Amino acid sequence: MSLRSWLSIPRGSHFSLANIPFGIISTDASPKPRPAVAIGDYALDLEAFTAKNGFSACSIIQPHQTVFSQTTLNAFAALGRPIHSVVRKYIQSVFSENTPHSEILKSNTSLQREVLIPLKEVKTHLPMHIGDYTDFYAGRNHAFNVGSMFRGKDNALQPNYNHLPVGYHGRASSVVVSGTRIRRPQGQILENPVATPKQPIFSPCKKLDIELELGALVCKPNKLGEPITISAAEENIFGVVLMNDWSARDIQAWEYVPLGPFNAKNFGTTISPWIVLVDALEPFMTKGLSQETELLPYLREKRKENMYDIRLQVNLTPESGKTTTIATTSSKNLLFSFPQMLAHHSITGCPMNVGDLLGSGTISGLEPTERGALIEQTWNGKDPIRLEGGEERTFLEDGDTVTIKGVCGNNEDSLVGFGECVGTIEAAINLQPHIG
Amino acid sequence: MSLRSWLSIPRGSHFSLANIPFGIISTDASPKPRPAVAIGDYALDLEAFTAKNGFSACSIIQPHQTVFSQTTLNAFAALGRPIHSVVRKYIQSVFSENTPHSEILKSNTSLQREVLIPLKEVKTHLPMHIGDYTDFYAGRNHAFNVGSMFRGKDNALQPNYNHLPVGYHGRASSVVVSGTRIRRPQGQILENPVATPKQPIFSPCKKLDIELELGALVCKPNKLGEPITISAAEENIFGVVLMNDWSARDIQAWEYVPLGPFNAKNFGTTISPWIVLVDALEPFMTKGLSQETELLPYLREKRKENMYDIRLQVNLTPESGKTTTIATTSSKNLLFSFPQMLAHHSITGCPMNVGDLLGSGTISGLEPTERGALIEQTWNGKDPIRLEGGEERTFLEDGDTVTIKGVCGNNEDSLVGFGECVGTIEAAINLQPHIG
Ligand SMILES: [Ca+2]
Ligand SMILES: [Ca+2]
Ligand SMILES: [Mg+2]
Ligand SMILES: [Mg+2]
Ligand code: NI
Repeated sequence: MSLRSWLSIPRGSHFSLANIPFGIISTDASPKPRPAVAIGDYALDLEAFTAKNGFSACSIIQPHQTVFSQTTLNAFAALGRPIHSVVRKYIQSVFSENTPHSEILKSNTSLQREVLIPLKEVKTHLPMHIGDYTDFYAGRNHAFNVGSMFRGKDNALQPNYNHLPVGYHGRASSVVVSGTRIRRPQGQILENPVATPKQPIFSPCKKLDIELELGALVCKPNKLGEPITISAAEENIFGVVLMNDWSARDIQAWEYVPLGPFNAKNFGTTISPWIVLVDALEPFMTKGLSQETELLPYLREKRKENMYDIRLQVNLTPESGKTTTIATTSSKNLLFSFPQMLAHHSITGCPMNVGDLLGSGTISGLEPTERGALIEQTWNGKDPIRLEGGEERTFLEDGDTVTIKGVCGNNEDSLVGFGECVGTIEAAINLQPHIG
Repeated sequence: MSLRSWLSIPRGSHFSLANIPFGIISTDASPKPRPAVAIGDYALDLEAFTAKNGFSACSIIQPHQTVFSQTTLNAFAALGRPIHSVVRKYIQSVFSENTPHSEILKSNTSLQREVLIPLKEVKTHLPMHIGDYTDFYAGRNHAFNVGSMFRGKDNALQPNYNHLPVGYHGRASSVVVSGTRIRRPQGQILENPVATPKQPIFSPCKKLDIELELGALVCKPNKLGEPITISAAEENIFGVVLMNDWSARDIQAWEYVPLGPFNAKNFGTTISPWIVLVDALEPFMTKGLSQETELLPYLREKRKENMYDIRLQVNLTPESGKTTTIATTSSKNLLFSFPQMLAHHSITGCPMNVGDLLGSGTISGLEPTERGALIEQTWNGKDPIRLEGGEERTFLEDGDTVTIKGVCGNNEDSLVGFGECVGTIEAAINLQPHIG
């Protein structure tokens, strides 16, 4: 089957026929959120497509068609990877230039007008109900840089770092979809860390940062007490999104010992709206960072090429308008894969649910231009970076917009991309009426 | 209105007419989970009571009666505290010996047979859908003991401890209702912490512990970016349960630096099934531990008596059968109140949802017999405790049952109690077929 489409898909589109990512959309005309796939410059409204018998030549999905009238993708995800695979291939075949099903959409222009909505007219929503969110720390270069900054190179990584995917439970309620504005958080900050006694002040965050990450969404649950094995874990992952784990470094520095980051991380985590299915990413698997230690058996993966090679980019646009690409790197800069994270997370018997989100940890390459957080780029504020247009940044300022992009592949006609993960910083709220 | 009931309520019942706690029940005859209140030795089935016009003399709830045919209490909780208060008082009046509504239940013996189900015939369920769970660490005596153990008395508390309610995001998916069996978790353990290099082994947890806590459940949401003020926070709390935050101390010791406890805490957290409403606890408010530092304004509470004086007890019953009370204390041994935790949690703009669970942190008094965790009681395993019947314990063994009880009040006819929070330890799962 050709991967050329009868639909005009612009060269360089993230949403080529090779992709078919799933999301949740609404429109002014039809404000109820519903499932869709992105293809070229359009969203295919799956609820409308289903209602008009768009899946008439795809028998496997027919008993389950109500999944496309839900407001999240959880029900579709729960059908399992074999069905995701069939549905994705069917949609590819419907859009293929030599489709065997031309009556369904290719030659049915009135249905095209009903079910293909220009992406620019579409509002995207959080694609899944996220029951629990866990953020890992598998970006070894990032962990090494941050560790070096505070403890020196020789003690940069903690003794546990190479043995297990370090992670912490995050705040699911503040995971938001790309485009949601992020208010600068406030809280306790230790302005003078060497004074005795240590006396925090109350302040808007002065070290507001980003973290360039991938997020994986779970499609298969396990029961309390029953670990997911490393060999089975791949089947439990629905797909991948871009993620910006906004971080308040000054709040974190004061609060995080001994129980970990808390308020520094719970004011917002942004994910891209289109979930790229694991199947679409399969051609872009590669080796990740080398393990420096032999892993315990429950973390040993059979496949050597266990990482995605996604070209990632972070852009910063001040309110004044000029955009600077502040980082470019590849998602292969991770020490542990999502299946390893799932195996570790559940080895205690922790139950995972459909829609759970796993963050990869900040992804940084070895070079300064490949660093996925401002704390690394500016070495905790010591070396400001210069933006196009002349402004400097140590951390984020009000009005700054951060845009993460990610894409796989080299053929501009068959890219597998994620679109964008965007957020703009709003000034801190005036608390006087609240705490006065 | 008298707090004596026409229903025979045994002296010493936790569920006197002064209480009226809410839960979710099912029965063999009617397996659909549904709301109920506990009263004496009975559950009042609120779905059946509503269907038979039990609320005919309570006009305020009538537009909302579908809340009592839900499978969780979230919809009822979301109605807000003024309505909880009216509904609780109405149920008290219906059961009062001189009820003005005797036609509703007192003189309607056939309805009594339909809606009053002996508690021993009832299965209880998780009372709310818990979107997010956060565990705090406000038990200052516990924090001091554990800190002393590892860092000595002079550095027992971290510099941030007295300034903010230290907490971490927990795992909502593994919060379970009392009675759920807890499987011993497995994972990475550093058997020899002084060897170089540090090399973990894979093992069932050898230091399985309990944490005696209270849990508070949220009934009012706040929007992303909009903090809950300390003066408003009381209205956001629905009620309180007993909580056992099962903890794997050896897994925790290896994993927790720098991002906090993770697998050590995600294999199970048990809560008691009956949510005691804030209104029922109001008569038992008292002062907590004294603040040693002036708090920042966003944490300053107007009321001085901001803690519950709940008599708490931890019982341990080995498989062989004899029960030992291993700890007794009061829940007033906390440095921060639930409203303070909510104000701190949301000061960044973190959104709280109806059903969110806040854990208090381990509650310990000053005396060794008042310690709410085995790690404190046995000083990390050095001083075993002796059980009735002659066995010793450092940490939990397979087959051990831990029962937490909590009750307020001194008059045996009007106790406000929580019932029990129970869990039994099962042997670790055999992983060979999984990882072999
Ligand atoms: Ca992160
Ligand atoms: Ca705890
Ligand atoms: Mg975040
Ligand atoms: Mg727990
Ligand atoms: Ni949920």
